[in-house]
Amino acid sequence: MVTTTLSDIELAHKMANAAGKVITPHFRTEIEYDNKDTAAGFDPVSEADRAAERTMRDIVDQFRHKDGFCGEEFADKVGSSGRVWVVDPIDGTRGFMCGTPTWGTLIALRSKSERVCLGLIDQPYIGERFWGTDGQAYFQNRNSKKKIFTSRILDLSAAKLFSTFPEIGRTHDRSGFKAVAHKVQLVRFGMDCYAYALLAAGYIELIIEAGLRPYDINAPIGLIEAAGGIVTNWSGQNAVNGGQVLAAANQSLHLAALDLLKDYAD
Amino acid sequence: MVTTTLSDIELAHKMANAAGKVITPHFRTEIEYDNKDTAAGFDPVSEADRAAERTMRDIVDQFRHKDGFCGEEFADKVGSSGRVWVVDPIDGTRGFMCGTPTWGTLIALRSKSERVCLGLIDQPYIGERFWGTDGQAYFQNRNSKKKIFTSRILDLSAAKLFSTFPEIGRTHDRSGFKAVAHKVQLVRFGMDCYAYALLAAGYIELIIEAGLRPYDINAPIGLIEAAGGIVTNWSGQNAVNGGQVLAAANQSLHLAALDLLKDYAD
Repeated sequence: MVTTTLSDIELAHKMANAAGKVITPHFRTEIEYDNKDTAAGFDPVSEADRAAERTMRDIVDQFRHKDGFCGEEFADKVGSSGRVWVVDPIDGTRGFMCGTPTWGTLIALRSKSERVCLGLIDQPYIGERFWGTDGQAYFQNRNSKKKIFTSRILDLSAAKLFSTFPEIGRTHDRSGFKAVAHKVQLVRFGMDCYAYALLAAGYIELIIEAGLRPYDINAPIGLIEAAGGIVTNWSGQNAVNGGQVLAAANQSLHLAALDLLKDYAD
Repeated sequence: MVTTTLSDIELAHKMANAAGKVITPHFRTEIEYDNKDTAAGFDPVSEADRAAERTMRDIVDQFRHKDGFCGEEFADKVGSSGRVWVVDPIDGTRGFMCGTPTWGTLIALRSKSERVCLGLIDQPYIGERFWGTDGQAYFQNRNSKKKIFTSRILDLSAAKLFSTFPEIGRTHDRSGFKAVAHKVQLVRFGMDCYAYALLAAGYIELIIEAGLRPYDINAPIGLIEAAGGIVTNWSGQNAVNGGQVLAAANQSLHLAALDLLKDYAD
Protein backbone atom coordinates (compact mmCIF):
# COMPACT_ATOMS: atom_id res chain seq x y z
CA MET A 1 0.00 0.00 0.00
CA VAL A 2 1.29 3.42 -0.96
CA THR A 3 1.06 6.10 1.68
CA THR A 4 0.75 9.53 0.19
CA THR A 5 -0.09 13.08 0.98
CA LEU A 6 -1.74 13.77 -2.39
CA SER A 7 -4.90 15.83 -1.92
CA ASP A 8 -8.08 14.85 -3.76
CA ILE A 9 -7.58 17.53 -6.39
CA GLU A 10 -3.93 16.53 -6.87
CA LEU A 11 -5.11 12.96 -7.38
CA ALA A 12 -7.68 14.14 -9.94
CA HIS A 13 -4.91 15.95 -11.88
CA LYS A 14 -2.79 12.81 -11.73
CA MET A 15 -5.69 10.77 -13.14
CA ALA A 16 -6.31 13.32 -15.91
CA ASN A 17 -2.62 13.44 -16.85
CA ALA A 18 -2.50 9.64 -17.07
CA ALA A 19 -5.74 9.40 -19.08
CA GLY A 20 -4.59 12.09 -21.51
CA LYS A 21 -1.35 10.19 -22.18
CA VAL A 22 -3.35 7.06 -22.99
CA ILE A 23 -6.05 8.70 -25.11
CA THR A 24 -4.27 11.38 -27.15
CA PRO A 25 -2.16 9.00 -29.29
CA HIS A 26 -5.43 7.39 -30.50
CA PHE A 27 -7.06 10.69 -31.47
CA ARG A 28 -7.44 11.07 -35.24
CA THR A 29 -6.05 7.62 -35.93
CA GLU A 30 -7.90 4.66 -37.40
CA ILE A 31 -9.02 2.69 -34.36
CA GLU A 32 -11.75 0.08 -33.95
CA TYR A 33 -15.02 1.12 -32.36
CA ASP A 34 -17.40 -1.41 -30.82
CA ASN A 35 -21.10 -0.60 -30.68
CA LYS A 36 -22.37 -0.92 -27.09
CA ASP A 37 -25.97 -0.37 -28.17
CA THR A 38 -26.65 -2.76 -31.04
CA ALA A 39 -30.36 -2.95 -30.12
CA ALA A 40 -31.29 0.72 -30.06
CA GLY A 41 -28.65 2.60 -31.99
CA PHE A 42 -24.99 3.45 -32.12
CA ASP A 43 -22.97 3.92 -28.92
CA PRO A 44 -19.33 3.64 -29.86
CA VAL A 45 -16.53 2.65 -27.50
CA SER A 46 -12.87 1.96 -28.27
CA GLU A 47 -9.76 0.58 -26.66
CA ALA A 48 -8.81 4.21 -25.93
CA ASP A 49 -11.86 4.50 -23.62
CA ARG A 50 -11.18 1.21 -21.89
CA ALA A 51 -7.42 1.70 -21.41
CA ALA A 52 -7.88 5.22 -20.01
CA GLU A 53 -10.54 4.04 -17.55
CA ARG A 54 -8.31 1.18 -16.38
CA THR A 55 -5.44 3.64 -15.84
CA MET A 56 -7.58 5.95 -13.71
CA ARG A 57 -9.07 3.06 -11.75
CA ASP A 58 -5.57 1.77 -10.97
CA ILE A 59 -4.61 5.20 -9.60
CA VAL A 60 -7.65 5.28 -7.32
CA ASP A 61 -6.93 1.70 -6.17
CA GLN A 62 -3.36 2.70 -5.41
CA PHE A 63 -3.93 6.02 -3.64
CA ARG A 64 -7.53 5.75 -2.29
CA HIS A 65 -8.19 2.05 -1.89
CA LYS A 66 -11.21 2.66 0.37
CA ASP A 67 -13.01 4.83 -2.23
CA GLY A 68 -15.49 3.46 -4.73
CA PHE A 69 -15.11 3.86 -8.51
CA CYS A 70 -17.82 4.32 -11.13
CA GLY A 71 -16.78 4.52 -14.77
CA GLU A 72 -18.52 4.28 -18.13
CA GLU A 73 -16.83 1.15 -19.38
CA PHE A 74 -16.47 -1.35 -16.50
CA ALA A 75 -18.49 -2.56 -13.49
CA ASP A 76 -18.67 -0.28 -10.46
CA LYS A 77 -16.31 -0.84 -7.54
CA VAL A 78 -17.97 -0.39 -4.16
CA GLY A 79 -15.62 1.11 -1.58
CA SER A 80 -15.76 1.27 2.21
CA SER A 81 -15.30 5.06 2.61
CA GLY A 82 -18.67 6.09 1.18
CA ARG A 83 -16.83 8.28 -1.34
CA VAL A 84 -16.98 7.47 -5.07
CA TRP A 85 -14.83 8.61 -8.01
CA VAL A 86 -17.09 9.00 -11.04
CA VAL A 87 -15.24 8.95 -14.34
CA ASP A 88 -15.86 9.06 -18.08
CA PRO A 89 -12.59 8.50 -19.95
CA ILE A 90 -13.87 10.00 -23.23
CA ASP A 91 -17.10 11.96 -22.98
CA GLY A 92 -18.12 12.56 -26.57
CA THR A 93 -16.82 9.42 -28.26
CA ARG A 94 -18.80 10.32 -31.40
CA GLY A 95 -16.96 13.64 -31.55
CA PHE A 96 -13.70 11.79 -30.90
CA MET A 97 -14.46 9.50 -33.88
CA CYS A 98 -14.97 12.58 -36.06
CA GLY A 99 -11.76 14.34 -35.03
CA THR A 100 -13.52 17.21 -33.22
CA PRO A 101 -11.47 18.46 -30.26
CA THR A 102 -14.53 18.89 -28.01
CA TRP A 103 -14.50 15.50 -26.26
CA GLY A 104 -13.11 15.41 -22.75
CA THR A 105 -12.05 13.28 -19.82
CA LEU A 106 -14.46 13.71 -16.89
CA ILE A 107 -13.40 13.11 -13.29
CA ALA A 108 -15.62 13.70 -10.25
CA LEU A 109 -15.52 12.85 -6.58
CA ARG A 110 -18.82 12.23 -4.81
CA SER A 111 -19.04 12.45 -1.03
CA LYS A 112 -20.99 10.20 1.34
CA SER A 113 -23.91 12.63 1.17
CA GLU A 114 -24.33 12.20 -2.63
CA ARG A 115 -22.90 15.66 -3.29
CA VAL A 116 -20.20 16.16 -5.89
CA CYS A 117 -17.27 17.80 -4.09
CA LEU A 118 -14.81 17.93 -7.02
CA GLY A 119 -15.18 18.11 -10.79
CA LEU A 120 -12.60 18.19 -13.60
CA ILE A 121 -12.93 18.38 -17.40
CA ASP A 122 -9.78 17.80 -19.44
CA GLN A 123 -9.25 18.36 -23.19
CA PRO A 124 -5.72 17.07 -23.71
CA TYR A 125 -5.49 17.61 -27.49
CA ILE A 126 -6.06 21.37 -27.20
CA GLY A 127 -4.24 21.34 -23.87
CA GLU A 128 -7.04 22.76 -21.72
CA ARG A 129 -8.19 21.75 -18.26
CA PHE A 130 -11.10 23.09 -16.17
CA TRP A 131 -11.58 22.03 -12.54
CA GLY A 132 -13.34 23.07 -9.37
CA THR A 133 -13.57 22.11 -5.72
CA ASP A 134 -14.33 23.86 -2.41
CA GLY A 135 -16.03 26.82 -4.10
CA GLN A 136 -13.12 27.70 -6.37
CA ALA A 137 -12.74 26.86 -10.06
CA TYR A 138 -9.80 27.18 -12.44
CA PHE A 139 -8.86 27.01 -16.11
CA GLN A 140 -5.41 26.15 -17.40
CA ASN A 141 -4.10 25.98 -20.94
CA ARG A 142 -0.63 25.96 -22.47
CA ASN A 143 -0.15 29.65 -21.72
CA SER A 144 -1.86 30.46 -18.45
CA LYS A 145 -3.84 29.44 -15.38
CA LYS A 146 -6.68 31.55 -14.04
CA LYS A 147 -9.65 31.46 -11.70
CA ILE A 148 -12.97 31.15 -13.50
CA PHE A 149 -16.48 32.30 -12.63
CA THR A 150 -19.84 31.73 -14.29
CA SER A 151 -21.52 34.51 -16.31
CA ARG A 152 -23.41 37.32 -14.58
CA ILE A 153 -25.93 37.68 -17.41
CA LEU A 154 -29.32 37.52 -15.67
CA ASP A 155 -31.87 37.69 -18.51
CA LEU A 156 -32.89 34.73 -20.66
CA SER A 157 -33.04 37.03 -23.69
CA ALA A 158 -29.28 37.61 -23.43
CA ALA A 159 -28.35 34.01 -22.60
CA LYS A 160 -26.43 31.57 -24.81
CA LEU A 161 -27.86 28.04 -24.64
CA PHE A 162 -26.11 24.78 -25.56
CA SER A 163 -27.50 21.29 -25.93
CA THR A 164 -26.84 17.94 -27.56
CA PHE A 165 -30.40 18.06 -28.95
CA PRO A 166 -31.58 17.19 -31.54
CA GLU A 167 -29.41 14.11 -31.18
CA ILE A 168 -30.60 13.05 -27.74
CA GLY A 169 -33.96 13.01 -25.99
CA ARG A 170 -37.56 11.95 -26.23
CA THR A 171 -40.35 14.07 -27.71
CA HIS A 172 -41.29 15.76 -24.44
CA ASP A 173 -37.60 16.38 -23.63
CA ARG A 174 -37.29 18.24 -26.93
CA SER A 175 -40.46 20.22 -26.20
CA GLY A 176 -38.97 21.39 -22.90
CA PHE A 177 -35.73 22.33 -24.62
CA LYS A 178 -37.62 24.30 -27.28
CA ALA A 179 -39.63 26.20 -24.66
CA VAL A 180 -36.36 27.69 -23.39
CA ALA A 181 -34.62 27.85 -26.79
CA HIS A 182 -37.27 30.27 -28.08
CA LYS A 183 -36.45 32.76 -25.30
CA VAL A 184 -32.64 32.98 -25.48
CA GLN A 185 -30.19 35.01 -27.57
CA LEU A 186 -28.66 32.04 -29.36
CA VAL A 187 -28.57 28.25 -29.34
CA ARG A 188 -25.63 26.04 -30.25
CA PHE A 189 -25.23 22.28 -30.54
CA GLY A 190 -22.71 19.50 -30.60
CA MET A 191 -20.07 20.38 -28.00
CA ASP A 192 -20.35 17.35 -25.67
CA CYS A 193 -18.83 18.00 -22.22
CA TYR A 194 -16.94 20.99 -23.58
CA ALA A 195 -20.13 23.05 -23.23
CA TYR A 196 -20.09 22.53 -19.45
CA ALA A 197 -16.51 23.82 -19.34
CA LEU A 198 -17.56 26.91 -21.33
CA LEU A 199 -20.41 27.53 -18.87
CA ALA A 200 -18.10 27.22 -15.87
CA ALA A 201 -15.68 29.68 -17.48
CA GLY A 202 -18.42 32.28 -18.03
CA TYR A 203 -18.68 32.15 -21.85
CA ILE A 204 -22.19 30.65 -22.07
CA GLU A 205 -25.14 30.70 -19.66
CA LEU A 206 -27.34 27.63 -20.08
CA ILE A 207 -27.16 23.93 -20.98
CA ILE A 208 -30.25 21.75 -21.31
CA GLU A 209 -29.96 18.03 -21.88
CA ALA A 210 -31.80 14.77 -21.27
CA GLY A 211 -30.96 11.09 -21.12
CA LEU A 212 -27.67 11.69 -19.30
CA ARG A 213 -25.97 9.04 -17.24
CA PRO A 214 -24.26 9.73 -13.89
CA TYR A 215 -20.74 9.71 -15.35
CA ASP A 216 -21.82 12.35 -17.92
CA ILE A 217 -22.88 14.91 -15.36
CA ASN A 218 -21.00 14.42 -12.06
CA ALA A 219 -17.82 16.20 -13.16
CA PRO A 220 -19.77 19.11 -14.73
CA ILE A 221 -21.75 19.49 -11.48
CA GLY A 222 -18.56 19.72 -9.38
CA LEU A 223 -16.92 22.16 -11.79
CA ILE A 224 -19.90 24.45 -12.37
CA GLU A 225 -20.97 24.66 -8.73
CA ALA A 226 -17.41 25.62 -7.75
CA ALA A 227 -17.49 28.37 -10.41
CA GLY A 228 -20.76 29.82 -9.06
CA GLY A 229 -23.35 28.09 -11.24
CA ILE A 230 -26.27 25.75 -10.53
CA VAL A 231 -26.93 22.27 -11.94
CA THR A 232 -30.18 20.38 -11.22
CA ASN A 233 -32.65 18.13 -12.97
CA TRP A 234 -35.77 19.65 -14.56
CA SER A 235 -37.58 19.48 -11.22
CA GLY A 236 -34.88 21.48 -9.49
CA GLN A 237 -33.49 18.44 -7.62
CA ASN A 238 -29.97 16.98 -7.42
CA ALA A 239 -28.89 15.89 -10.92
CA VAL A 240 -26.21 13.50 -9.71
CA ASN A 241 -28.02 10.50 -11.20
CA GLY A 242 -28.32 12.03 -14.67
CA GLY A 243 -31.55 12.10 -16.71
CA GLN A 244 -32.91 15.55 -17.58
CA VAL A 245 -30.32 18.19 -16.71
CA LEU A 246 -30.36 21.99 -16.52
CA ALA A 247 -27.09 23.84 -15.92
CA ALA A 248 -27.27 27.59 -15.38
CA ALA A 249 -24.73 30.33 -14.75
CA ASN A 250 -26.66 31.82 -11.83
CA GLN A 251 -29.84 31.58 -9.79
CA SER A 252 -31.78 34.10 -11.86
CA LEU A 253 -31.31 32.13 -15.11
CA HIS A 254 -31.81 28.83 -13.31
CA LEU A 255 -35.22 29.91 -11.98
CA ALA A 256 -36.31 31.36 -15.32
CA ALA A 257 -35.35 28.20 -17.26
CA LEU A 258 -36.74 25.86 -14.59
CA ASP A 259 -40.08 27.63 -14.78
CA LEU A 260 -40.26 26.76 -18.50
CA LEU A 261 -38.93 23.21 -18.11
CA LYS A 262 -40.92 21.99 -15.11
CA ASP A 263 -43.98 21.02 -17.17
CA TYR A 264 -41.75 18.59 -19.08
CA ALA A 265 -39.99 17.09 -16.04
CA ASP A 266 -40.13 13.30 -15.65
CA MET B 1 4.70 49.37 -54.81
CA VAL B 2 6.30 46.35 -53.19
CA THR B 3 7.86 43.87 -55.54
CA THR B 4 7.86 40.38 -54.10
CA THR B 5 8.36 36.78 -54.99
CA LEU B 6 5.74 35.51 -52.52
CA SER B 7 3.69 32.73 -54.09
CA ASP B 8 -0.09 32.74 -53.72
CA ILE B 9 0.01 30.14 -50.95
CA GLU B 10 2.76 32.03 -49.14
CA LEU B 11 0.58 35.12 -49.32
CA ALA B 12 -2.38 33.16 -47.93
CA HIS B 13 -0.24 32.06 -44.96
CA LYS B 14 0.88 35.65 -44.44
CA MET B 15 -2.77 36.76 -44.40
CA ALA B 16 -3.74 33.99 -41.95
CA ASN B 17 -0.85 34.80 -39.63
CA ALA B 18 -1.81 38.47 -39.60
CA ALA B 19 -5.52 37.74 -39.04
CA GLY B 20 -4.75 35.32 -36.20
CA LYS B 21 -2.67 37.96 -34.44
CA VAL B 22 -5.58 40.40 -34.65
CA ILE B 23 -8.36 37.99 -33.68
CA THR B 24 -6.90 35.77 -30.95
CA PRO B 25 -6.51 38.50 -28.28
CA HIS B 26 -10.28 39.13 -28.57
CA PHE B 27 -11.24 35.45 -28.14
CA ARG B 28 -12.96 34.77 -24.81
CA THR B 29 -12.93 38.41 -23.80
CA GLU B 30 -15.90 40.71 -23.35
CA ILE B 31 -16.23 42.50 -26.68
CA GLU B 32 -19.16 44.30 -28.29
CA TYR B 33 -21.13 42.53 -30.97
CA ASP B 34 -23.29 44.40 -33.48
CA ASN B 35 -26.26 42.64 -35.02
CA LYS B 36 -26.05 42.82 -38.83
CA ASP B 37 -29.49 41.24 -39.25
CA THR B 38 -31.87 43.19 -37.02
CA ALA B 39 -34.80 42.45 -39.33
CA ALA B 40 -34.63 38.67 -39.56
CA GLY B 41 -32.57 37.47 -36.62
CA PHE B 42 -29.18 37.62 -35.02
CA ASP B 43 -26.02 37.89 -37.13
CA PRO B 44 -23.26 39.08 -34.84
CA VAL B 45 -20.11 40.92 -35.95
CA SER B 46 -17.39 42.50 -33.85
CA GLU B 47 -14.38 44.74 -34.18
CA ALA B 48 -12.30 41.53 -34.27
CA ASP B 49 -14.00 40.56 -37.56
CA ARG B 50 -13.57 44.03 -39.07
CA ALA B 51 -9.95 44.57 -37.99
CA ALA B 52 -8.88 41.14 -39.27
CA GLU B 53 -10.55 41.73 -42.64
CA ARG B 54 -8.89 45.13 -42.99
CA THR B 55 -5.51 43.54 -42.21
CA MET B 56 -5.93 40.88 -44.88
CA ARG B 57 -7.23 43.38 -47.42
CA ASP B 58 -4.18 45.58 -46.82
CA ILE B 59 -1.89 42.63 -47.51
CA VAL B 60 -3.65 41.87 -50.80
CA ASP B 61 -3.51 45.57 -51.75
CA GLN B 62 0.19 45.59 -50.99
CA PHE B 63 1.26 42.35 -52.66
CA ARG B 64 -1.43 41.74 -55.32
CA HIS B 65 -2.81 45.15 -56.16
CA LYS B 66 -4.42 43.89 -59.38
CA ASP B 67 -6.47 41.19 -57.60
CA GLY B 68 -10.00 41.71 -56.37
CA PHE B 69 -11.06 41.21 -52.75
CA CYS B 70 -14.36 39.91 -51.39
CA GLY B 71 -14.83 39.76 -47.61
CA GLU B 72 -17.75 39.34 -45.24
CA GLU B 73 -17.56 42.75 -43.58
CA PHE B 74 -16.77 45.40 -46.24
CA ALA B 75 -17.68 46.22 -49.84
CA ASP B 76 -16.06 44.14 -52.58
CA LYS B 77 -12.98 45.47 -54.32
CA VAL B 78 -12.97 44.80 -58.07
CA GLY B 79 -9.49 44.12 -59.43
CA SER B 80 -8.05 44.13 -62.95
CA SER B 81 -6.50 40.64 -62.94
CA GLY B 82 -9.75 38.66 -62.89
CA ARG B 83 -8.57 36.91 -59.74
CA VAL B 84 -10.40 37.44 -56.43
CA TRP B 85 -9.35 36.74 -52.82
CA VAL B 86 -12.45 35.59 -50.92
CA VAL B 87 -12.12 35.93 -47.16
CA ASP B 88 -14.13 35.45 -43.97
CA PRO B 89 -12.12 36.74 -40.99
CA ILE B 90 -14.16 34.78 -38.42
CA ASP B 91 -16.38 32.05 -39.82
CA GLY B 92 -18.55 31.01 -36.88
CA THR B 93 -18.89 34.28 -34.99
CA ARG B 94 -21.63 32.70 -32.85
CA GLY B 95 -19.21 29.99 -31.78
CA PHE B 96 -16.56 32.66 -31.22
CA MET B 97 -19.01 34.51 -28.91
CA CYS B 98 -19.52 31.29 -26.94
CA GLY B 99 -15.81 30.50 -26.52
CA THR B 100 -15.90 27.36 -28.73
CA PRO B 101 -12.59 26.86 -30.58
CA THR B 102 -14.27 25.78 -33.81
CA TRP B 103 -14.45 29.14 -35.58
CA GLY B 104 -11.87 29.81 -38.26
CA THR B 105 -10.34 32.29 -40.63
CA LEU B 106 -11.20 31.41 -44.25
CA ILE B 107 -9.01 32.47 -47.17
CA ALA B 108 -9.60 31.49 -50.79
CA LEU B 109 -8.28 32.55 -54.17
CA ARG B 110 -10.65 32.38 -57.15
CA SER B 111 -9.30 32.33 -60.66
CA LYS B 112 -10.65 34.10 -63.73
CA SER B 113 -12.65 30.99 -64.59
CA GLU B 114 -14.64 31.09 -61.31
CA ARG B 115 -12.75 28.09 -59.95
CA VAL B 116 -11.25 28.16 -56.46
CA CYS B 117 -7.54 27.46 -56.87
CA LEU B 118 -6.48 27.81 -53.21
CA GLY B 119 -8.27 27.33 -49.88
CA LEU B 120 -7.08 27.77 -46.30
CA ILE B 121 -8.83 27.29 -42.93
CA ASP B 122 -7.01 28.56 -39.84
CA GLN B 123 -7.88 27.96 -36.18
CA PRO B 124 -5.31 30.09 -34.37
CA TYR B 125 -6.48 29.42 -30.78
CA ILE B 126 -5.86 25.67 -31.07
CA GLY B 127 -2.96 26.36 -33.40
CA GLU B 128 -4.19 24.38 -36.40
CA ARG B 129 -4.09 25.24 -40.09
CA PHE B 130 -5.47 23.31 -43.07
CA TRP B 131 -4.75 24.39 -46.64
CA GLY B 132 -4.78 23.11 -50.19
CA THR B 133 -3.78 24.18 -53.68
CA ASP B 134 -2.67 22.49 -56.91
CA GLY B 135 -4.06 19.10 -55.89
CA GLN B 136 -2.17 18.90 -52.60
CA ALA B 137 -3.52 19.58 -49.12
CA TYR B 138 -1.77 19.92 -45.77
CA PHE B 139 -2.44 20.12 -42.03
CA GLN B 140 -0.15 21.79 -39.55
CA ASN B 141 -0.45 22.11 -35.78
CA ARG B 142 2.02 22.96 -33.01
CA ASN B 143 3.69 19.56 -33.30
CA SER B 144 3.70 18.52 -36.93
CA LYS B 145 2.89 19.15 -40.57
CA LYS B 146 1.47 16.45 -42.82
CA LYS B 147 -0.23 15.87 -46.13
CA ILE B 148 -3.95 15.19 -45.82
CA PHE B 149 -6.38 13.21 -47.94
CA THR B 150 -10.15 12.79 -47.78
CA SER B 151 -11.68 9.55 -46.44
CA ARG B 152 -11.92 6.43 -48.60
CA ILE B 153 -15.17 5.26 -47.00
CA LEU B 154 -17.50 4.63 -49.93
CA ASP B 155 -20.83 3.63 -48.33
CA LEU B 156 -23.35 6.10 -46.93
CA SER B 157 -24.08 3.67 -44.08
CA ALA B 158 -20.50 4.10 -42.80
CA ALA B 159 -20.31 7.87 -43.39
CA LYS B 160 -20.14 10.59 -40.73
CA LEU B 161 -22.26 13.64 -41.66
CA PHE B 162 -21.95 17.19 -40.28
CA SER B 163 -24.23 20.16 -40.67
CA THR B 164 -25.19 23.48 -39.12
CA PHE B 165 -28.83 22.34 -39.25
CA PRO B 166 -31.12 22.69 -37.34
CA GLU B 167 -29.89 26.28 -37.00
CA ILE B 168 -29.87 27.18 -40.68
CA GLY B 169 -32.10 26.42 -43.59
CA ARG B 170 -35.67 26.49 -44.86
CA THR B 171 -38.16 23.62 -44.49
CA HIS B 172 -37.26 21.94 -47.79
CA ASP B 173 -33.52 22.35 -47.04
CA ARG B 174 -34.05 20.44 -43.78
CA SER B 175 -36.02 17.74 -45.60
CA GLY B 176 -33.11 17.21 -47.97
CA PHE B 177 -30.68 17.05 -45.08
CA LYS B 178 -32.88 14.50 -43.28
CA ALA B 179 -33.12 12.30 -46.36
CA VAL B 180 -29.35 11.80 -46.17
CA ALA B 181 -29.11 11.90 -42.35
CA HIS B 182 -31.30 8.80 -42.08
CA LYS B 183 -28.83 6.79 -44.17
CA VAL B 184 -25.49 7.57 -42.50
CA GLN B 185 -23.63 6.15 -39.51
CA LEU B 186 -23.76 9.30 -37.42
CA VAL B 187 -24.68 12.97 -37.61
CA ARG B 188 -23.04 15.82 -35.72
CA PHE B 189 -23.80 19.54 -35.52
CA GLY B 190 -22.33 22.88 -34.59
CA MET B 191 -18.77 22.87 -35.93
CA ASP B 192 -18.89 25.86 -38.32
CA CYS B 193 -16.02 25.82 -40.84
CA TYR B 194 -14.09 23.37 -38.69
CA ALA B 195 -16.21 20.56 -40.16
CA TYR B 196 -14.80 21.28 -43.65
CA ALA B 197 -11.29 20.99 -42.25
CA LEU B 198 -12.19 17.63 -40.68
CA LEU B 199 -13.56 16.43 -44.03
CA ALA B 200 -10.42 17.50 -45.88
CA ALA B 201 -8.28 15.66 -43.32
CA GLY B 202 -10.22 12.40 -43.75
CA TYR B 203 -12.01 12.26 -40.37
CA ILE B 204 -15.57 12.76 -41.64
CA GLU B 205 -17.19 12.07 -45.00
CA LEU B 206 -20.12 14.44 -45.65
CA ILE B 207 -21.29 17.98 -44.95
CA ILE B 208 -24.71 19.24 -45.99
CA GLU B 209 -25.67 22.88 -45.54
CA ALA B 210 -27.91 25.56 -46.99
CA GLY B 211 -28.08 29.34 -47.02
CA LEU B 212 -24.31 29.72 -47.35
CA ARG B 213 -22.69 32.86 -48.71
CA PRO B 214 -19.69 32.83 -51.08
CA TYR B 215 -17.16 33.69 -48.36
CA ASP B 216 -18.43 30.72 -46.27
CA ILE B 217 -17.68 28.12 -48.91
CA ASN B 218 -14.85 29.28 -51.23
CA ALA B 219 -12.02 28.32 -48.87
CA PRO B 220 -13.59 24.93 -48.03
CA ILE B 221 -13.94 24.23 -51.78
CA GLY B 222 -10.26 24.97 -52.42
CA LEU B 223 -9.10 22.91 -49.43
CA ILE B 224 -11.37 19.89 -49.95
CA GLU B 225 -10.81 19.61 -53.72
CA ALA B 226 -7.04 19.68 -53.13
CA ALA B 227 -7.43 16.85 -50.58
CA GLY B 228 -9.39 14.68 -53.03
CA GLY B 229 -13.00 15.55 -52.16
CA ILE B 230 -15.89 17.07 -54.08
CA VAL B 231 -17.96 20.17 -53.25
CA THR B 232 -21.02 21.16 -55.28
CA ASN B 233 -24.49 22.58 -54.78
CA TRP B 234 -27.46 20.20 -54.46
CA SER B 235 -27.79 20.09 -58.26
CA GLY B 236 -24.18 18.96 -58.66
CA GLN B 237 -23.03 22.35 -59.99
CA ASN B 238 -20.24 24.71 -58.88
CA ALA B 239 -20.96 25.85 -55.30
CA VAL B 240 -18.75 28.92 -55.49
CA ASN B 241 -21.73 31.26 -55.00
CA GLY B 242 -22.97 29.50 -51.85
CA GLY B 243 -26.59 28.46 -51.24
CA GLN B 244 -27.22 24.74 -50.79
CA VAL B 245 -23.90 22.92 -50.43
CA LEU B 246 -22.87 19.27 -50.42
CA ALA B 247 -19.26 18.38 -49.57
CA ALA B 248 -18.22 14.75 -49.93
CA ALA B 249 -15.00 12.83 -49.35
CA ASN B 250 -15.15 11.04 -52.71
CA GLN B 251 -17.20 10.55 -55.85
CA SER B 252 -19.07 7.50 -54.58
CA LEU B 253 -20.45 9.32 -51.53
CA HIS B 254 -21.05 12.46 -53.54
CA LEU B 255 -23.24 10.61 -56.05
CA ALA B 256 -25.15 8.74 -53.35
CA ALA B 257 -25.90 11.92 -51.37
CA LEU B 258 -26.69 13.96 -54.48
CA ASP B 259 -29.24 11.36 -55.53
CA LEU B 260 -31.09 11.94 -52.23
CA LEU B 261 -30.71 15.74 -52.27
CA LYS B 262 -31.59 16.55 -55.87
CA ASP B 263 -35.36 16.57 -55.23
CA TYR B 264 -34.80 19.40 -52.74
CA ALA B 265 -32.43 21.47 -54.90
CA ASP B 266 -33.40 25.10 -55.52
